Amino acid sequence: MDHASGSPVDKRVIETMMPYFTDEVGNPASLHTSGMNANIALEDARENVADFIGADSSKNIIFTSSGTESNNLALRGLTHRKKSKGKHIITTSIEHMSVLNTCKDLQHDGFEVSVIPVGSDGMMDVDAITEAVTDETILISAMYANGEIGTIQPIREIGEMAHDYKITFHVDAVAACGKIPIDVEKDNIDLLSMASNDLYGPRGVGTLYVKSGVPLRPQITGGGQEHGMRSGSENIAGIVGFSKACEIAKAEMKSEGERLIKLRDRLIDGILGNIDYSYITGHNSKRLPNNASVRFSFIEGESIILGLNAVGVEASTGSACSVKTLEPSHVLIAIGLKQEEAHGSLLMTLGRQNTDADVDHVLENIPAIVARLRAMSPLYPGDKHGSGT
Amino acid sequence: MDHASGSPVDKRVIETMMPYFTDEVGNPASLHTSGMNANIALEDARENVADFIGADSSKNIIFTSSGTESNNLALRGLTHRKKSKGKHIITTSIEHMSVLNTCKDLQHDGFEVSVIPVGSDGMMDVDAITEAVTDETILISAMYANGEIGTIQPIREIGEMAHDYKITFHVDAVAACGKIPIDVEKDNIDLLSMASNDLYGPRGVGTLYVKSGVPLRPQITGGGQEHGMRSGSENIAGIVGFSKACEIAKAEMKSEGERLIKLRDRLIDGILGNIDYSYITGHNSKRLPNNASVRFSFIEGESIILGLNAVGVEASTGSACSVKTLEPSHVLIAIGLKQEEAHGSLLMTLGRQNTDADVDHVLENIPAIVARLRAMSPLYPGDKHGSGT
Repeated sequence: MDHASGSPVDKRVIETMMPYFTDEVGNPASLHTSGMNANIALEDARENVADFIGADSSKNIIFTSSGTESNNLALRGLTHRKKSKGKHIITTSIEHMSVLNTCKDLQHDGFEVSVIPVGSDGMMDVDAITEAVTDETILISAMYANGEIGTIQPIREIGEMAHDYKITFHVDAVAACGKIPIDVEKDNIDLLSMASNDLYGPRGVGTLYVKSGVPLRPQITGGGQEHGMRSGSENIAGIVGFSKACEIAKAEMKSEGERLIKLRDRLIDGILGNIDYSYITGHNSKRLPNNASVRFSFIEGESIILGLNAVGVEASTGSACSVKTLEPSHVLIAIGLKQEEAHGSLLMTLGRQNTDADVDHVLENIPAIVARLRAMSPLYPGDKHGSGT
Repeated sequence: MDHASGSPVDKRVIETMMPYFTDEVGNPASLHTSGMNANIALEDARENVADFIGADSSKNIIFTSSGTESNNLALRGLTHRKKSKGKHIITTSIEHMSVLNTCKDLQHDGFEVSVIPVGSDGMMDVDAITEAVTDETILISAMYANGEIGTIQPIREIGEMAHDYKITFHVDAVAACGKIPIDVEKDNIDLLSMASNDLYGPRGVGTLYVKSGVPLRPQITGGGQEHGMRSGSENIAGIVGFSKACEIAKAEMKSEGERLIKLRDRLIDGILGNIDYSYITGHNSKRLPNNASVRFSFIEGESIILGLNAVGVEASTGSACSVKTLEPSHVLIAIGLKQEEAHGSLLMTLGRQNTDADVDHVLENIPAIVARLRAMSPLYPGDKHGSGT
């Protein structure tokens, strides 16, 4: 139940990729048959990904190596091309580190960054973002949904406002892609980042949607691949796999989403209903179908994870991208939790492999794990019914 | 015979990768079992790659998404950290576009670049490079061997000179890696780029060796992976595959190199001995074991490639990275060929799959292909024995 950290590649995706490891190994730039086949595969994948997010044209799709690279390309690429118009960027306090740290880096290059806070349910405040706009604002970067607390954001409204002010709007959809429908046209999005593994494709592949006319300075230069926006011989097997993953997600998103929401709600309700001092994190309803994030008072999320691991359940305390730092997740701090509250967080992200039996297994085991840890905690006041353990 | 453009992934490499698509899908940053397994796989791969190039420590290895990205990281990363010491870069006229175009981009950022010419055999001139050194020089970037003409460069001598002047030395070893032994310590190399597919690993994976103490500014920021030098969740399957590819190359390089040299020389000699007005490009002996690059007067390389493609042989006119531009390869111009001479180039790059039968097949077919094309060429003076076709 840690799909946000790493998901298996769908078997149908692997099957689609295999020929491109062994037989179809041409370079799309070559003139011979296998080169032309590689080019066809590449352009078909581009069409597929464009179709998945409602892009006008496959020309709007740039393949990268990760969601992180896509976010970097969007932020660095856009700001360096538009800096003569202004040097102000707006983003939010719950963005992924690849947005927040890139913004920090851009501050060293003379850009000014406004980081807008979110509510206690992780929801962005469109009015607060609007108030931060100045004549110098060239870019607003906001995530579609947060992978750690699941909150789905008012992207369409933010995009509408951004376009009223003629500001470029970048959306990090890495956590959201494949889980909820995204339409770059209807959602008023100029730049959109996705990552393949977040929809059961292979790692090492991402994409950046770039609306026609939005200027970018390439960050990796060389042979001029990807319309000159991202050089390097294309990872055809990976790209074909990502494309297949989009195709599957498009076909199955609705039914799979409904199935996951039932599992998710049973998991959250089962925990909140049976364990004292446990709380949901993120929004109650505007929430990714697969995201069950909760927190427990008086104990450490890390200890719960090790307890769950011992009974065969893999989970997380937050973003796997920063878990090694021992700092509590910046997202949990951003929604107003105190350090000690944030340390008690448990993030479970469901996926295609998970069934009712998995939810039952967690619900059967977690009360004892929490109780055992609380018994060792000097802070624990005893359960609400007075039994003391 | 176009391995330089794209090679199949070795079946042993694919076998090693497969579990990381389906079962071992943890994120190295996670605390649970599959996260720890991923971390072990990642660090084992790092050790293996370090060992392959004689690096002191696995800490010197940064995984990237391609040779192009590695070259970008080396050039941009180093220059932006050392620009207070000077703003002069030295490189050569036969480098890959990911070096030359990145140097051009750095010129826009105020750096000065000297591009040193090479000899007609593609060999770099250590004295000419030395003469270009100024007090402002902070970086020399030179390739280990050129993929289009095969010439192996005097890297150790250039590195020695660079270190005498306390200049950082970057080597693009993408074309050379897996084909000839590389030892970063003995070769006096500070930064070394490699790409996985060039040694039968998967595409979408590269590496940059960074000698301890050499400063770099990261180009992709975020979660701080790869010692903070390259953010983004690690492509574990790809990295494990690259590592296996290094292991195989290390074990088999000597015997495979000897086998390829025999095939290569029979191919080159068979063409030069049987077709008038055909010439070798690149160095006669200091040459990659798999590189057979030749050129023919009075005809276009593209037409030869299409003729060979019709009899089932895939070849190239030069770098697949730039072949779509219709410009002759900058490498062939750099070794002093005229435009029309460069247009007659044919690049065949041999690999593990190629046998004596493949060489026979080319040698049987190519004289007729060349003769047919020359028969249509108004420039062709007739063969040297006067038969006129």
